[in-house]
Amino acid sequence: MRLPGKRRSRKVGLSPGTMVHIGERRAEKVRISLLDYKEDHFEEKTILVPSDAGTYRDTKTVSWLNINGIHDVGIIEEIGRMYNLHPLTLEDIVNTEQRPKLEEFDDYLFIVLKFLSFDEKKEALDSEQISIVLGKNYVISFQERDSDMFQSVRERIRSGKGRMRTHGADYLAYALIDSIVDSYFLVLERFGDKIGDLEDDILENPSEKVIERLHHFKRIAIFLRKSVWPLREVLSFLDRQESKIISKATKIFLRDVYDHTIQVIDTVESLRDLLASMIEIYLSNISNRLNSVMKTLTIIATIFMPLTFITGLYGMNFEIMPELRWGGGYYVVLGMMFLISSGMILIFKRKGWM
Amino acid sequence: MRLPGKRRSRKVGLSPGTMVHIGERRAEKVRISLLDYKEDHFEEKTILVPSDAGTYRDTKTVSWLNINGIHDVGIIEEIGRMYNLHPLTLEDIVNTEQRPKLEEFDDYLFIVLKFLSFDEKKEALDSEQISIVLGKNYVISFQERDSDMFQSVRERIRSGKGRMRTHGADYLAYALIDSIVDSYFLVLERFGDKIGDLEDDILENPSEKVIERLHHFKRIAIFLRKSVWPLREVLSFLDRQESKIISKATKIFLRDVYDHTIQVIDTVESLRDLLASMIEIYLSNISNRLNSVMKTLTIIATIFMPLTFITGLYGMNFEIMPELRWGGGYYVVLGMMFLISSGMILIFKRKGWM
Amino acid sequence: MRLPGKRRSRKVGLSPGTMVHIGERRAEKVRISLLDYKEDHFEEKTILVPSDAGTYRDTKTVSWLNINGIHDVGIIEEIGRMYNLHPLTLEDIVNTEQRPKLEEFDDYLFIVLKFLSFDEKKEALDSEQISIVLGKNYVISFQERDSDMFQSVRERIRSGKGRMRTHGADYLAYALIDSIVDSYFLVLERFGDKIGDLEDDILENPSEKVIERLHHFKRIAIFLRKSVWPLREVLSFLDRQESKIISKATKIFLRDVYDHTIQVIDTVESLRDLLASMIEIYLSNISNRLNSVMKTLTIIATIFMPLTFITGLYGMNFEIMPELRWGGGYYVVLGMMFLISSGMILIFKRKGWM
Amino acid sequence: MRLPGKRRSRKVGLSPGTMVHIGERRAEKVRISLLDYKEDHFEEKTILVPSDAGTYRDTKTVSWLNINGIHDVGIIEEIGRMYNLHPLTLEDIVNTEQRPKLEEFDDYLFIVLKFLSFDEKKEALDSEQISIVLGKNYVISFQERDSDMFQSVRERIRSGKGRMRTHGADYLAYALIDSIVDSYFLVLERFGDKIGDLEDDILENPSEKVIERLHHFKRIAIFLRKSVWPLREVLSFLDRQESKIISKATKIFLRDVYDHTIQVIDTVESLRDLLASMIEIYLSNISNRLNSVMKTLTIIATIFMPLTFITGLYGMNFEIMPELRWGGGYYVVLGMMFLISSGMILIFKRKGWM
Amino acid sequence: MRLPGKRRSRKVGLSPGTMVHIGERRAEKVRISLLDYKEDHFEEKTILVPSDAGTYRDTKTVSWLNINGIHDVGIIEEIGRMYNLHPLTLEDIVNTEQRPKLEEFDDYLFIVLKFLSFDEKKEALDSEQISIVLGKNYVISFQERDSDMFQSVRERIRSGKGRMRTHGADYLAYALIDSIVDSYFLVLERFGDKIGDLEDDILENPSEKVIERLHHFKRIAIFLRKSVWPLREVLSFLDRQESKIISKATKIFLRDVYDHTIQVIDTVESLRDLLASMIEIYLSNISNRLNSVMKTLTIIATIFMPLTFITGLYGMNFEIMPELRWGGGYYVVLGMMFLISSGMILIFKRKGWM
Repeated sequence: MRLPGKRRSRKVGLSPGTMVHIGERRAEKVRISLLDYKEDHFEEKTILVPSDAGTYRDTKTVSWLNINGIHDVGIIEEIGRMYNLHPLTLEDIVNTEQRPKLEEFDDYLFIVLKFLSFDEKKEALDSEQISIVLGKNYVISFQERDSDMFQSVRERIRSGKGRMRTHGADYLAYALIDSIVDSYFLVLERFGDKIGDLEDDILENPSEKVIERLHHFKRIAIFLRKSVWPLREVLSFLDRQESKIISKATKIFLRDVYDHTIQVIDTVESLRDLLASMIEIYLSNISNRLNSVMKTLTIIATIFMPLTFITGLYGMNFEIMPELRWGGGYYVVLGMMFLISSGMILIFKRKGWM
Repeated sequence: MRLPGKRRSRKVGLSPGTMVHIGERRAEKVRISLLDYKEDHFEEKTILVPSDAGTYRDTKTVSWLNINGIHDVGIIEEIGRMYNLHPLTLEDIVNTEQRPKLEEFDDYLFIVLKFLSFDEKKEALDSEQISIVLGKNYVISFQERDSDMFQSVRERIRSGKGRMRTHGADYLAYALIDSIVDSYFLVLERFGDKIGDLEDDILENPSEKVIERLHHFKRIAIFLRKSVWPLREVLSFLDRQESKIISKATKIFLRDVYDHTIQVIDTVESLRDLLASMIEIYLSNISNRLNSVMKTLTIIATIFMPLTFITGLYGMNFEIMPELRWGGGYYVVLGMMFLISSGMILIFKRKGWM
Repeated sequence: MRLPGKRRSRKVGLSPGTMVHIGERRAEKVRISLLDYKEDHFEEKTILVPSDAGTYRDTKTVSWLNINGIHDVGIIEEIGRMYNLHPLTLEDIVNTEQRPKLEEFDDYLFIVLKFLSFDEKKEALDSEQISIVLGKNYVISFQERDSDMFQSVRERIRSGKGRMRTHGADYLAYALIDSIVDSYFLVLERFGDKIGDLEDDILENPSEKVIERLHHFKRIAIFLRKSVWPLREVLSFLDRQESKIISKATKIFLRDVYDHTIQVIDTVESLRDLLASMIEIYLSNISNRLNSVMKTLTIIATIFMPLTFITGLYGMNFEIMPELRWGGGYYVVLGMMFLISSGMILIFKRKGWM
Repeated sequence: MRLPGKRRSRKVGLSPGTMVHIGERRAEKVRISLLDYKEDHFEEKTILVPSDAGTYRDTKTVSWLNINGIHDVGIIEEIGRMYNLHPLTLEDIVNTEQRPKLEEFDDYLFIVLKFLSFDEKKEALDSEQISIVLGKNYVISFQERDSDMFQSVRERIRSGKGRMRTHGADYLAYALIDSIVDSYFLVLERFGDKIGDLEDDILENPSEKVIERLHHFKRIAIFLRKSVWPLREVLSFLDRQESKIISKATKIFLRDVYDHTIQVIDTVESLRDLLASMIEIYLSNISNRLNSVMKTLTIIATIFMPLTFITGLYGMNFEIMPELRWGGGYYVVLGMMFLISSGMILIFKRKGWM
Repeated sequence: MRLPGKRRSRKVGLSPGTMVHIGERRAEKVRISLLDYKEDHFEEKTILVPSDAGTYRDTKTVSWLNINGIHDVGIIEEIGRMYNLHPLTLEDIVNTEQRPKLEEFDDYLFIVLKFLSFDEKKEALDSEQISIVLGKNYVISFQERDSDMFQSVRERIRSGKGRMRTHGADYLAYALIDSIVDSYFLVLERFGDKIGDLEDDILENPSEKVIERLHHFKRIAIFLRKSVWPLREVLSFLDRQESKIISKATKIFLRDVYDHTIQVIDTVESLRDLLASMIEIYLSNISNRLNSVMKTLTIIATIFMPLTFITGLYGMNFEIMPELRWGGGYYVVLGMMFLISSGMILIFKRKGWM
């Protein structure tokens, strides 16, 4: 997991609004696809020449322009010019180190979100930045990768069923946001399972590896928290929003996504609490094991030290030691030793050490 | 205790408003019962055909439709259509992974709450989702289980005593909320007792099992907190509410439930503080026991090591060791040993180690 | 110290407004006393028949009705009927598990407070619930116990000196609240002294009992906090209050009590911080003692193990061991041992272990 | 350091507004001094008869009445009567257990502040209460001690340079507040130095005394925090203040003091964080030392136990032990021992224990 | 890292608005440079006589006056007089112990910021105070050092490309603020790398030096936090600002810097969380190593103590000990010892101690 803010330094000293792609290049080439629809109209095509995209801007139908791959600054700039986007918007689109946010411009809303996924094998979180520009009649979405994460939304538009075709661009934007927030539940589910596994390990088999995993999970939780909290603001802002871009009907749906983000935040906070509690158990388990090690040592020492003393006693070479001459002396001593060690064991049993 | 958010993943990619039952199936079959009443009117019946339920919607009497079992999406949808409920409301009713919340729609309020119960044997918390739809003249309540938790409210309506019959649907909704919040006091009482028991264990008999129970209780507290805090919002929202659905007289009662939830929250926070303090005692108890183990070891070693050294000394085989030839040498050494060990014991007593 | 919420379960399922006395019965029998006064008028009497109390409701004088003992639900109900109190008010008066709160009704304010006292011998906090109903011309106060805690207020009215007689019912209510908040300073003073004592114990003589007392004090602090925070709301609410019941002149005095509660809260928080710091010292003290125990052991072992080895060496039975035959061999070995142990001691001294 | 709230109990049960001096008597006798000035006018004198002070109340010049010593309730009362101060104001002036606060009355503002000083030898914080009454044309300041802490302000008025003479009473009050807040920087500087010293001790020479000093410093930090936070409110209140007592020009200066208090609060919080971090290093240092003690013990035991076993082996008295008869047996065993101990030392070196 | 508030004591007792340079002298001599520009105009010069600077105040072009070196109070005062700056503004400019802040005056805004840099070799944070005065047509910036940190802004103006020339003074101020906030990303990147290195050390090679570095990093984090939080206020204040000094177009850019500061704050908080988690791993690592040391000791003791006892047993000098006379006694005992030690090792292996 990389700490945010990295590589941002490349931009220090540049003029604001300068477009520099920050982040890994995650798509081979830029792919622009368009969906244009109305209740009784549906058109889908791949746009090869960026300048073609502009023709859909002022139609009365809902136009959804989706761009996969943001590393080609030129293309993004072209689209920006046609849709009249603010230079800062364009700068933010190509900088993948953004915090989720919403910005209001004169004739569009600009939304930055993070799509999260959890790789169960590597136990690592992966995040992809999604930028959405919502205008009166159009939505432009930018994805980092080639693989389309809005497949299900696209299907719903194609099929013509449900509310997609009859509602406007604001509803489309909502559907995109909703599918991103949905991805969080998946991440939390999988991450939660991993934490549950670790919890079992800590209680049953607390090896030294455990603390490193705990720390790793804590880092993931820190990162999750950072990605999730700003969502709350974004969505409550959308709700309070009074522009004409978002209709009242869509707001009810947005309120629903808002509820989901609150639920996501709640869960992240609970997982953090859980991790904190797990560290406490781990620490007390280490202490308990130390206790048990020390008890073993003490038992051994307490039993054998007196015995060894006695053997030493009768190993002394004094000329006059009457006990040594007694016929049964050896057996008496053996018996004594047996009594002493039995007594010790009894004491330890009563103390609960054995 | 299951972490929330689980199984939610089934819904990823579906159109919003799609009804998918999320959660266990907890009732055998759906049971719909109806109570229709006014000051001088009372009717009670079980509804077999869902479409019959709609006829009570616009009567001037107060109609209370209660549904036990929410796994049959079709029936819920039917009711939703008749009472003109928003698709998102229906989606939320059948999804038991909701956070307690209140939503305002044009002609009804939608409230989601959690009924909690504490199983003292398993020391586990159980939660059941209750959804309440409050319209001008009707209340629809949805329960997950077959067993009716609103029995006492039903009795009060039947008997015709008290305020139930003379007040409107808003008062009925209040009565339902009140009986849910009341269940929290029971849970807290029982959970508090268990914590008290554990507290005694920690102080008197801190075995290693204790830390696991502590962790288990902490998880319950985390879950409780998550269920209880949103209640505050729900109820303060109801109070600030300015729709015509809730009368001023009922608001006084709602303020009272609000006070109860604050009290519940306070108690949950106190229990959390208590658990945190208990972990500290437990840890210091482990350390104290380690100290006492180590003292035992040190005492034994400190007494026997010098003694063993002396026996070793006179066990050496040098040809010329005058002491060995003295007649009383053995006894002198025995005496010396007695003095040394007594001295050691005295020192330890003074140090407070014995 | 009992955790709040207990025994509340008796009320689950009852109709709201049902009066059930919750809490211990703390007074033998209910005692109702009345003070009726104006600048030039003073009347004091004990009321035997509850229904007599009603006659003072609409007089132009200030009437103070004080009830000691709240277990007799019938009497409280009677008074409630005469003074037109809301059923929820009556319910709250007899339920001693209330959180401090203020509620505004059409023609009166209802205030619930906790009178606290600290039993220095048992080191226990005791809390008694005081309910105050403030109307235009009257104040009704309910105490759990027979002993009167408003004696000093009563005296001031009787004497006719000070502001009591010339101000209205609102000033009387203020005086009652003030004397309750004053009790908190006493509790904090005594509790603070006990904490100071414990602090000395921890620094000078940290026995194992200390941690239990620390935990006990922490519980008291948790309880105190819970009782004290709501006070802030109550008093700031009284200040913002815009009803005609509270005059501007009295508000200046209420602001003063508000300042006192802030001071009380500050002190409670400081005591909590102090207790948290004390646990840290205690834990580091345990660790330090463990260190010193282990040093003792290590010193003993490090001195005697090599010595014992040497004695063992010359205790071996090899036929050819030249040293054994030397005349001064024994003395050389004794000398060597002396040098070794002196050297060890020197090393330990330099390390600061001795 | 005394915990606040102490000795306050003397006032329990007294009528509000009753003046009781709470705190130590810190001045021998009350001293009243007066400064009366305008741009072209300056008069300074010591007032012997309190009633003389009243004559300056309604002049057009700025009058500054300063009282050193507040134990003589009679004198304070006299001044209060002449300047028409509210009984609660007078009560607060003589009670040194106040929290910093600001109260607005009809024709004056009443401000309570704490002057702090840090005794570097005793490492103790000392606090003196300063009360300031700001009217339209006059300022009355009350100090506990005889020594004047407003000497520099007095000088500036006398010299007639700077803004003092040309601005009104509000600017004088500002100057007094400013010089009190300035004292905090001094305290923080000195306290910070002490913490820095302790930090060095912990890192280099963590004796057991350190934890007691840490705790002592933590107490000071708790007390500081309690004194400093309310200042923020006082000054932001002064800024929002809309009475005619404070001019717009002075508000710019008050905003400046406000900034200073924020800076003071920031520093106190940083010092708290620092102390918390120091406790962690201390604890890990103890643990590290325990580790090193235990390593010493383990090394000694691991080297000498096998050796002692070998000596014991050849100290056995079996009749047939061939090794004992070999001529070089003794030397072979010595060599073996040397090898074993060298091997052990090598292992420990590789483990990094030596 | 020096704690803030230091050396501030020099100012105690001085009249407010008195200019005293607080901080190190960081520039050799004061250097004043001027840039005067408009869309079609550009002039750049170094000003030698401070009084020349005033002539650019009321021109219609944008004038940027930059001062490197603030130790010469006289020059700052001269500039202040010409641009009509408030005495408190001047006082703040020369006092480098300011908290980042924004102050609004009648005809200018005064902004104090901190430029941060991280010295990777010394692992130390360095901070330089930058003050910016923004008037209708001019910007005055004050830097502590001689080296110009606004080089890139200057270049952009010179080149005449981008927005710089066509926008007003407010945009210039934004550009300066933006380049300061950009420096934070650099600091966080480098500091984050160092933390990452330390993290690896803790997991792989937790020497005792580590805790000191951890503490050092924590101090840096405390200091960072203190510098970064106030930025948020400054920028949100700039946004809410309704003066005519800042145009709507520039506000969009300011909102962008605001987003950057939020991101910076988020990262600082994450780093703090990370450091807290690292201390936990370190502590549990110490405990684990103690455990492993103790296990070694216990294994050694448990194996050799019984063996040594046996050798002692047959080293006793009793006359009648039949075993000693048996021919194979010695070999039987050796075998027994082998069995015992093998058994012990088996037990330890099963326990997972070896």
